[in-house]
Amino acid sequence: MTEKLDQGARDEALSPLKDAGWEMAADRDAITKTFRFDSFVEAFGWMARAAILAEKMNHHPEWFNVYNKVTVTLTTHDAGGLSHLDIELANKMDTLSR
Amino acid sequence: MTEKLDQGARDEALSPLKDAGWEMAADRDAITKTFRFDSFVEAFGWMARAAILAEKMNHHPEWFNVYNKVTVTLTTHDAGGLSHLDIELANKMDTLSR
Repeated sequence: MTEKLDQGARDEALSPLKDAGWEMAADRDAITKTFRFDSFVEAFGWMARAAILAEKMNHHPEWFNVYNKVTVTLTTHDAGGLSHLDIELANKMDTLSR
Repeated sequence: MTEKLDQGARDEALSPLKDAGWEMAADRDAITKTFRFDSFVEAFGWMARAAILAEKMNHHPEWFNVYNKVTVTLTTHDAGGLSHLDIELANKMDTLSR
């Protein structure tokens, strides 16, 4: 069972993610970011790479793609909110998008 | 410029798609279906194959994935609603999911 982040860990982890464009979801304990690419091929190529990393972590995003945009929402259902897995996956996605 | 389907073409095309689980979107002239798979790997594998077909058609879905589910919405922005491209892509996606 993965544990929800406590307040200290959350503040520390979220600060750099917010600088990188992540924000809290409006309606639940989750983080969200919209990634924009030059084309559908670029967007889906990024999704394919992120999908493999997510599967390796056994931690999967909720994501919506339309053409060159991908809106990602990360949360940990087991934990009932944000866990270290969400922070790790967010960082990996940011690294992949660079 | 792709043309919107006229009423006759729309009725003819939508009847078999509705039998296959597609329905009209609530809020606009679009069709939508949720595909369910055995796992994230199966769901994303299907998305990868559908993405290549969509790119070849130069006609792209709006789609939302969470774990083993993919909710697809198809419409033709150029045409301001459903066109023959949506019908073709819907049929290709159904074929791929079999």
